Amino acid sequence: MNDVFKETFEYRKSILQKELNMMLGNDIVLSDNEEKANNIIMDLKRREIDYAFDNPQYFNFSKHFFEYKEEVKRSKLFKMIQRMPKGAVLHVHDTGILSPDYVLSLTYLDDLYVCFYENNVKFLFSLETPLSPCNTQWQLMKSARFSSGNVEEFDADLRKHFTIVIDDPHLIHRDINAVWSDFQQVFITTSGMLCYRPIWEQYFYDTLRALRDDNVMYLEFRSVLPSLYDLDGTVFDEIETVRSYKKVLDRFMADYPDFYGAKLIYAPLRNVDLKTVRHYLNVAKRIREEFPEFLAGFDLVGQEDLGAPTKDFMEILSDSMEEMDYFFHAGESNWYGTSSDENLADAIALNTKRIGHAFAIAKHPLLMEEIKKKDIAIEVNVVSNAVLKLVSDVRNHPLAIFLANNLPVVLSSDDPGIWEAEPLSHDFYVTFVGVASRHADLRLLKKLAINSLVYSTYHNKDKIVHEFEKRWTKYIDSVIRDEIQ
Amino acid sequence: MNDVFKETFEYRKSILQKELNMMLGNDIVLSDNEEKANNIIMDLKRREIDYAFDNPQYFNFSKHFFEYKEEVKRSKLFKMIQRMPKGAVLHVHDTGILSPDYVLSLTYLDDLYVCFYENNVKFLFSLETPLSPCNTQWQLMKSARFSSGNVEEFDADLRKHFTIVIDDPHLIHRDINAVWSDFQQVFITTSGMLCYRPIWEQYFYDTLRALRDDNVMYLEFRSVLPSLYDLDGTVFDEIETVRSYKKVLDRFMADYPDFYGAKLIYAPLRNVDLKTVRHYLNVAKRIREEFPEFLAGFDLVGQEDLGAPTKDFMEILSDSMEEMDYFFHAGESNWYGTSSDENLADAIALNTKRIGHAFAIAKHPLLMEEIKKKDIAIEVNVVSNAVLKLVSDVRNHPLAIFLANNLPVVLSSDDPGIWEAEPLSHDFYVTFVGVASRHADLRLLKKLAINSLVYSTYHNKDKIVHEFEKRWTKYIDSVIRDEIQ
Repeated sequence: MNDVFKETFEYRKSILQKELNMMLGNDIVLSDNEEKANNIIMDLKRREIDYAFDNPQYFNFSKHFFEYKEEVKRSKLFKMIQRMPKGAVLHVHDTGILSPDYVLSLTYLDDLYVCFYENNVKFLFSLETPLSPCNTQWQLMKSARFSSGNVEEFDADLRKHFTIVIDDPHLIHRDINAVWSDFQQVFITTSGMLCYRPIWEQYFYDTLRALRDDNVMYLEFRSVLPSLYDLDGTVFDEIETVRSYKKVLDRFMADYPDFYGAKLIYAPLRNVDLKTVRHYLNVAKRIREEFPEFLAGFDLVGQEDLGAPTKDFMEILSDSMEEMDYFFHAGESNWYGTSSDENLADAIALNTKRIGHAFAIAKHPLLMEEIKKKDIAIEVNVVSNAVLKLVSDVRNHPLAIFLANNLPVVLSSDDPGIWEAEPLSHDFYVTFVGVASRHADLRLLKKLAINSLVYSTYHNKDKIVHEFEKRWTKYIDSVIRDEIQ
Repeated sequence: MNDVFKETFEYRKSILQKELNMMLGNDIVLSDNEEKANNIIMDLKRREIDYAFDNPQYFNFSKHFFEYKEEVKRSKLFKMIQRMPKGAVLHVHDTGILSPDYVLSLTYLDDLYVCFYENNVKFLFSLETPLSPCNTQWQLMKSARFSSGNVEEFDADLRKHFTIVIDDPHLIHRDINAVWSDFQQVFITTSGMLCYRPIWEQYFYDTLRALRDDNVMYLEFRSVLPSLYDLDGTVFDEIETVRSYKKVLDRFMADYPDFYGAKLIYAPLRNVDLKTVRHYLNVAKRIREEFPEFLAGFDLVGQEDLGAPTKDFMEILSDSMEEMDYFFHAGESNWYGTSSDENLADAIALNTKRIGHAFAIAKHPLLMEEIKKKDIAIEVNVVSNAVLKLVSDVRNHPLAIFLANNLPVVLSSDDPGIWEAEPLSHDFYVTFVGVASRHADLRLLKKLAINSLVYSTYHNKDKIVHEFEKRWTKYIDSVIRDEIQ
């Protein structure tokens, strides 16, 4: 081996190694058992990647999520990730978490009325035929289903209103606005059903259970806090919605004391005027007065490109900076240099505790430095960004860059029910196999899980991380044990 | 205005401004006239972007290049960019530059034989019916066309072999391997025709003219240096191919003394064994002996994911590092952490003068630092990367990140003829409107043009930059003049 070659080879090896040492998770030191589990997991991961590298036509993650989401569930690695303790979910929207099958099951409950119009459908629980407008006519759901003649077909058609998943591959490549419009329509359609108070409470209870089943131990969720209603038509205010949440949470915690709780981020719609934002902040403060432990903070939601830029509300928002914690959505856009893109700077200026998405931040070297310096976590929802058309091939998702630069990342799932994903497992799996470096290993997975606890607002971080570590150790043991058997 | 607001607002403004000051082109100071032209150009750019931001369904660059390439030619801004002096083209492959219409016109020449087989076609110029294998039978092109009965249809079918552009939107979203296979087939199909020495020389002459027409003043092109042949079946070696090139270049420079010349990067196929690479390097050295001024250096080409990694050849390549300049393709891949991805480190370790594509480098923070420190330019081919399926929406092209981080970028077009793009204008236009920040202005355009000269191997940089400046000033004057009229 001549000297030039030695030197050249040493340089490439050492610079690549230095980069690996910089990656998210580099500070995790694996125990002997973790090393063993890591070998098992990395063997599976490398086998999946190398096979796909040699046969890219079979590589799932360059396809649309709808085309691979069921298939990947059969992967051994997916199942391992599903069993893995994944910490907390910090970025989900409350009525987008459960599956269309779950929502369909709700349509079998008594007192539900339905209004079919054009290609759409509205729901309302009521003791009598609803008085609210319907372009055709309200029918009792039970009668509509019965008179359809074919319940299976009727339910299949109905279910389509609760999901944006489509089978037709030609329709998969619709433009971002078409997808967003369908996406928002699901929320609008289901709201008539979900805002019925008993259902609202049941949905939240079942959400907590679904997260727990997917090995999530704690939740921070965003809600626009819609008005709930009762059978007799009584409509309640936002605070009553929070009371429902709190009541259910207490019940759930009594039933499942191994869960670590949930907090609310009040996140009303951003496409509004100044006065409304001022009203929002007052509501947030009233919620905090009544439930100081339950409210994590404040955010604004809705497609950023269509809504008002955060900048427009800066004066009002800066007024409350000292008394309210912010968790702004920002940079969920690929319009570089536009107001949506610059929402990132506004969020940081307003001392946001975390940033929702921050998809665009890779184009902002100084903002990347700032969030690292200020330790502002970014809540990355990789499947959501793919489904909602920000990025097509997830290997181009900027998360790869965030991981390489050791940014404070937490993984979340945004609205997994709307695209029929698992509550968190798909996002972890796609990130681990599809987005991260082929070399990224168990340390990344552990770090992502721990980050979700560290960057949460849970009141006792030591305690929750300690409990996580206990579960993690058990999990690692089980990975090794299963391999031996 | 209260203090917190003032402070918050000041922070967001100043950090965004600092980022703009860091961007590629920030060091260009515009003259008064350039400021005027900048206003005209930015007005057009902002109008295009803002309209699309409000009506994303009409935004071109999130669509497939095939769907917008003709439409954008009608944009006033596109026409301005077409007229703009754009400096040099530093990354194109010699037989992928001219349009399918041009190649089709070559099939009207005498002595051309054609062999149609399966869905494919082979060509050969010959005095008599060729003896080389044909699964069906060789026909004189003239007779084949005549006996087809419908020349228009015949030509339209034939033309399909010279392009990868397809109209069927359902086929547009093929996987990367399907596209690469079609892409490489075009080169294989046309080679029988183009390697006929007189045609080879004509194609190169017309290439230089097409570049000059697109306001390019200098060229560095890659060639695998195929064997050329004569009508009587004589086959020549690689060096003879270089001689043809040099002869044509001299003729072209005599005809168009305002052009600044061309250099060859010898870039044979990478999917080979060690012995072949050693042979390649010997050929390169022989070329340099005979044409010291004409050879810029050495590269290896072919789909990186399928070829051998550069690492495998490192010992041989490092042996010649001192005597040969390298211009390696590297990181034209989205397989993070694989051998194709790590070709980037190999290229830098081997002292590459520029890197072809470097698409993956955004995932490598230290390699990004290295190329900045070592002033290694990256040759970005944004339309190519979109068409060849590395990235779907060009707003996600890492070029946005390269520009934000002020990396030494040059724009090029790779194989514009194969996807029916202008020699360089489409790449400039897509970059300016689709990839760069909404705020990126004339300074970016000028910097990109100047970079292409500064990072070239042209022997007298001062002279060529000076000439560019003269043409640029004229161009700026014409932009202002046209606006006034």
